[in-house]
Amino acid sequence: MKTIEWIGDVDGHLRLLDQTKLPTETTFLDCETPEDVYGAIKRLSVRGAPAIGVSAAYGIIVGLRDVIQTDRATFDQQFNKVCTYLADSRPTAVNLFWAIDRMQKLAQAESQLDPAAMRKRLLEEARTIDDEDREMCDAIGRFGAELIPQGAGVLTHCNTGALATAGMGTAFSVLYSAHKQGKNIHVYADETRPLLQGARLTAWELLQHGIPGTLICDSMAAWVMKEGKIQAVVTGADRIAANGDSANKIGTYSAAVLAKAHNIPFYIAAPSSTFDLSLATGEEIPIEQRDSAEITHGYGKQTAPLEIDTYNPAFDVTPAEYIAGLITERGVIQPVTTEEIAKVIAD
Amino acid sequence: MKTIEWIGDVDGHLRLLDQTKLPTETTFLDCETPEDVYGAIKRLSVRGAPAIGVSAAYGIIVGLRDVIQTDRATFDQQFNKVCTYLADSRPTAVNLFWAIDRMQKLAQAESQLDPAAMRKRLLEEARTIDDEDREMCDAIGRFGAELIPQGAGVLTHCNTGALATAGMGTAFSVLYSAHKQGKNIHVYADETRPLLQGARLTAWELLQHGIPGTLICDSMAAWVMKEGKIQAVVTGADRIAANGDSANKIGTYSAAVLAKAHNIPFYIAAPSSTFDLSLATGEEIPIEQRDSAEITHGYGKQTAPLEIDTYNPAFDVTPAEYIAGLITERGVIQPVTTEEIAKVIAD
Repeated sequence: MKTIEWIGDVDGHLRLLDQTKLPTETTFLDCETPEDVYGAIKRLSVRGAPAIGVSAAYGIIVGLRDVIQTDRATFDQQFNKVCTYLADSRPTAVNLFWAIDRMQKLAQAESQLDPAAMRKRLLEEARTIDDEDREMCDAIGRFGAELIPQGAGVLTHCNTGALATAGMGTAFSVLYSAHKQGKNIHVYADETRPLLQGARLTAWELLQHGIPGTLICDSMAAWVMKEGKIQAVVTGADRIAANGDSANKIGTYSAAVLAKAHNIPFYIAAPSSTFDLSLATGEEIPIEQRDSAEITHGYGKQTAPLEIDTYNPAFDVTPAEYIAGLITERGVIQPVTTEEIAKVIAD
Repeated sequence: MKTIEWIGDVDGHLRLLDQTKLPTETTFLDCETPEDVYGAIKRLSVRGAPAIGVSAAYGIIVGLRDVIQTDRATFDQQFNKVCTYLADSRPTAVNLFWAIDRMQKLAQAESQLDPAAMRKRLLEEARTIDDEDREMCDAIGRFGAELIPQGAGVLTHCNTGALATAGMGTAFSVLYSAHKQGKNIHVYADETRPLLQGARLTAWELLQHGIPGTLICDSMAAWVMKEGKIQAVVTGADRIAANGDSANKIGTYSAAVLAKAHNIPFYIAAPSSTFDLSLATGEEIPIEQRDSAEITHGYGKQTAPLEIDTYNPAFDVTPAEYIAGLITERGVIQPVTTEEIAKVIAD
């Protein structure tokens, strides 16, 4: 079951797993027009930075069907119109802009191709973006699995799997690889309040792949560690500073502190594109504050008084000193220091 | 606004704040019959061990209206029938049995009184049970407030306030006293998954008493500590072993470990009746496992796949070494050791 799939040849279409229906329904969206793709990204039917980038790249192709019999100028006009349109679907998604920009650069470089040939070339590029993402996930999984002991209980937070990437994910890819290698791991998934990505998505992915797993509330992680059930913690990251301080879903810092208190190694799995070496430390990472309704109306139902003040940071920053290793597609960075990061990440 | 109130004289009735309607509605239940009281306890309209005990004591009185013109034998028959009936409303509530037993012992001791006089005497006893509970709460609040610094941010977990006791609560009473003393505290309330007592009840109580407070998800507590917003943590307890190991709502141990990692004192507030000196350590405290639907259907709506395994311990045990002080109605036990506890608790 694929999150993102191109169906057919150059005249084909994009099929997306509709994540808004999970975990209660497994339905697919067949996107035949740029409007379909735009709507899917907007409604969060597809989410996760890499998955959005790949979807947008394929989304461009379905918008070029009517212009392959025209001249190249007309084709380029429509192509750029579709690119601008799709870039507007999720204004904060860096991978979205990156993927569209890559497609546009290719079209500029290949200005000699006729519309039909250019469309074929663009589909090849979208497939390459897709493939590269899958390879990145595989490499992270391969490097990370080496860190997971046989028979380990592994705690994870939020969703970092096939639903967020074109491949098997980042932290989830580590769990998947360890499982495939027959390491008999057992995953403990934090439900991840307020938006419950762990409950809704990670629990679903564990079942899809037959990985033994248990869903817990975030507040139970400490007790599960105390009971000796956890031998490693692996999460993803949204942004990593030059010194290794890592921003990720709120609750990640809590898991890291608790892991340290119980002498359990805490790892972050993320592609090299997550590193922002322009930031010396995590203190420079801005923390988005989100709407209070995510806390007071947890799942469409009011569960707290409307007048109560809330504090709802979307992310927290885990200092490098809590991180036993950074798992990237280029290898594991260990120990987590500015020097070791520079060796692996700096080009 | 009182959680539990006796309205009128001996012919009066019991008025309960209907907690099942909180936080969206503030409504009261006027209990005119033992059936009304039984239903209120059964439906969790009134909850919290001390609150249930006081409600049952008053509940007996409303069942004696029709037998005050009879002889004492007929009165006693009806009295014992009501006691047996109410004891069945919540089979695991120790305070319920304790309160009913106390009323029955009084009736046996005062066998010379006629029905009308006996009923008056029983109402006095119910009022005494009520008053003693309020005094216990006040004393805990008074002793505990001394530990809270001026201007402190104080984290609490679950609900330990006026909704769970006849008085101002246990941990909540500490917050209330510190606030009344003008200490300018700011309370951070964990929402307390899975049953959200912090969001539904503690947030409501903070607003009722005008105590400045902020509701957070449990996973945010660590980050709020890291940001320097918390100077003390206070929670309640369900059972405390002879060495100070304390069982309380799941997530309490997490808060204690996080507090230690951030050099923040962690206190437990609980009446002396919470201590069980027959247990040498917390390892002897059994942990109740609760239904998986509390995690998978957190908000009355399915938020996780039905097939996913869950782990849902109702309580965790915080080792004494994490507890900076045990706040009781007899004073603060500090340091938390078997010897210090014995001095204060053993009779």
